[in-house]
Amino acid sequence: MENFLVIGGDAAGMSAASRAGRNYPGLGITVLEQTNDVSYSACGMPYNIAQPQREIDDLVVRKAEVFREKQGINLLTGHRAESIDRENRVVKASGPDGGMREFPYDKLLIATGASPVMPDIPGIDLPGVMPLKRLEDGRKIKQYIGKNRVRDAVIIGMGYIGMEMCEAFAELGINVKMAGRGLLSGYNREIASKVREHLQQRGIVLHESCMIDSIERIDGRLRANCSDVSLKGDVVLLGLGVVPNNFLAADAGLSLGVKDSIAVDRYMRTSDPDIFSAGDCADAYHVVSGEKVWIPLALLANRGGWAVADNLDGNVTALDGVAGTAVFKVFDLGVARTGLNFDQAKTAGFSPAEVVIQGRTRAHAHPGAAPIWINAVGDSATGKLLGMQIVSSEGAAHRINAPAVALHSGMSVKDFAQSDLAYAPPFSPVWDPMLTAANQLIKEMH
Amino acid sequence: MENFLVIGGDAAGMSAASRAGRNYPGLGITVLEQTNDVSYSACGMPYNIAQPQREIDDLVVRKAEVFREKQGINLLTGHRAESIDRENRVVKASGPDGGMREFPYDKLLIATGASPVMPDIPGIDLPGVMPLKRLEDGRKIKQYIGKNRVRDAVIIGMGYIGMEMCEAFAELGINVKMAGRGLLSGYNREIASKVREHLQQRGIVLHESCMIDSIERIDGRLRANCSDVSLKGDVVLLGLGVVPNNFLAADAGLSLGVKDSIAVDRYMRTSDPDIFSAGDCADAYHVVSGEKVWIPLALLANRGGWAVADNLDGNVTALDGVAGTAVFKVFDLGVARTGLNFDQAKTAGFSPAEVVIQGRTRAHAHPGAAPIWINAVGDSATGKLLGMQIVSSEGAAHRINAPAVALHSGMSVKDFAQSDLAYAPPFSPVWDPMLTAANQLIKEMH
Repeated sequence: MENFLVIGGDAAGMSAASRAGRNYPGLGITVLEQTNDVSYSACGMPYNIAQPQREIDDLVVRKAEVFREKQGINLLTGHRAESIDRENRVVKASGPDGGMREFPYDKLLIATGASPVMPDIPGIDLPGVMPLKRLEDGRKIKQYIGKNRVRDAVIIGMGYIGMEMCEAFAELGINVKMAGRGLLSGYNREIASKVREHLQQRGIVLHESCMIDSIERIDGRLRANCSDVSLKGDVVLLGLGVVPNNFLAADAGLSLGVKDSIAVDRYMRTSDPDIFSAGDCADAYHVVSGEKVWIPLALLANRGGWAVADNLDGNVTALDGVAGTAVFKVFDLGVARTGLNFDQAKTAGFSPAEVVIQGRTRAHAHPGAAPIWINAVGDSATGKLLGMQIVSSEGAAHRINAPAVALHSGMSVKDFAQSDLAYAPPFSPVWDPMLTAANQLIKEMH
Repeated sequence: MENFLVIGGDAAGMSAASRAGRNYPGLGITVLEQTNDVSYSACGMPYNIAQPQREIDDLVVRKAEVFREKQGINLLTGHRAESIDRENRVVKASGPDGGMREFPYDKLLIATGASPVMPDIPGIDLPGVMPLKRLEDGRKIKQYIGKNRVRDAVIIGMGYIGMEMCEAFAELGINVKMAGRGLLSGYNREIASKVREHLQQRGIVLHESCMIDSIERIDGRLRANCSDVSLKGDVVLLGLGVVPNNFLAADAGLSLGVKDSIAVDRYMRTSDPDIFSAGDCADAYHVVSGEKVWIPLALLANRGGWAVADNLDGNVTALDGVAGTAVFKVFDLGVARTGLNFDQAKTAGFSPAEVVIQGRTRAHAHPGAAPIWINAVGDSATGKLLGMQIVSSEGAAHRINAPAVALHSGMSVKDFAQSDLAYAPPFSPVWDPMLTAANQLIKEMH
């Protein structure tokens, strides 16, 4: 093994390249990255956009020169991989000058990530209509807000990016209207309703059950025409989710998996044993259902990159998979989930039961306690915990890690309910609300 | 079964009495409580003391009348149990008028709790020298501070109560000096040192490796004479830990366990199958070592009370045991632990390895991130996670629940390191510091 070639220089790609350098001193490592940005905190963009005085490049975790000079990685930015010749083990890529070059490999990692969904509608290319996925997207949004008078923002999509950008725009003093099919699909209805109420309290105008049909520019402003309503704004943020960048893999005849992501085994190998895939373009096993899922998130990308580096020369590191853990903040609320929701559990063949409880974040009579809502899902057939969702202004994000670990262990609801969780009045009631939820769920499962 | 008799009307006793009433409608339930306070949040006392405008009785969770009138419990306050006659199944108790009465039982619960350690030294009975365990103690402290001019407080003992009262006194504008054998015994040295630095930054004077010899009253003030130093103050708070109230059980010939607590099985039964014990007077199994331990904390007391009520008529609810999870707040810091520390692990027969890592509580470049220190302990022989300790101004208390659940599951450090924990920039780096600690620990265990 002489050449390890990586396509894509973000979380998975650079994690793999860095660790491969430590694992195999002397290995030739080349990374082809089509943009000029590598190794940045994409999830930090909404918070950076909210602060005009900060540079978007603050989000760069490690600069290209560090990879090149300190780690000896042949990092080629502005290089776009065009095709994979599996027979001859060569990747063709176009460089910044437009010229095509060939890059040989012994082992290849496809870490091409995901791209924002761009609906095929009139006006999608108008200035001020912008998605947020790559650092370049964040840069453009920041510049646009800096150069134009933005009083109103229209957000299309009601998922994580929509929520985070809603807060970011509001912090910049920009009025926000949101439109989308539904708020936080994948979340329990009561949990989502707490987020809805919070957004409305903050003056965010919500249009649900709404599809976007076209965008126009009228009198210097943008108008997003949705099913029943037209929304005017100075900027239209597209937060409609992402799709895996699979074209190289598909063209090369590699197997595709869930939602056309690149299918990998637990060692991150594709259907070609010399080609790995990791990051937002690859699928993963779900630890609860055991089924393949495509849940592109940052931790999995980093972990996948490491695993690739460990497995270049044989199967060393197998990944458990994902529990579907995710958290986001919107204004004062933290909203967290792990595992399967009720509908997902049903689809996966379980016999789900669920509860939603309301508790308090601190002990009886302790000042400053906030309400907390917890949805817990269990399997009546096996007694197993299947998932949990939490919303609160205190401790939702860190609390969710306890059920996440329980899901990795295949713990029963009864055993989870017996967990010795931390108690002190400033942090929790004697029975942490998660235990209360588990105790209630046990009753529903009988 | 006609009569269920409970000795002790705090967390364990009242939990058991309430749940027994629901489990067995028609059962005669009598509770003997020697004080006039039942069902209060003892852990909330330091925070209540810090706020002079609040009444100590705010900490009462459920009033005696509610138990009596709504739940039909024969709750007798001011009744002190004096002896248990196991042969005739009768408890003798003295009432508020001093008269002795006999209470028959079919099933008996001893929930007599624990008492603060009061060293046998001159001056221990002086006015202004006070422990903090029962609500009456909190009432006295509050009254004393209200009536006397308290500028300086001396705290003897450097455990949880000492820490929490340190913050409470400081919030009242009272200068604090602390003396004790050592700060936070049971905590990793580096973790404890972060607490030490924080206390010193807040102007708390610490005297470690220090034993108290006597207390005097001189010129209207108190002087605590310790090994090498005499500390003057207007109040002396004793935080030297607690001992189990075992005398009734011991007199009745029941088996005692760790540190002379009352030995119980997983169903909370003592060596007499008709007598249960729960709460701060009873021992428990440790889920990591499998050994008996005595770790008197509130959640176990509540859980134990419930289990007693479930098991009155046969073995229904077995308790897993404790993981040794605990958390406290001192000024800006949360300090949390679960499982075994390095020394405890060694004593329990493991081959421990440990790390201490320093991380950040939020993502790269996210504003407001704070440092976080994590100590992780694993068993090199089996690969199992054995314990974790966390100190930080953000998220220590809720983070600790994840390793606590892992300990209940007997998870390996490698499996814990694979957990799909929550990530969003305001709450954590991509790799939560707990994962970083686990990844480092894996290297130490090879």
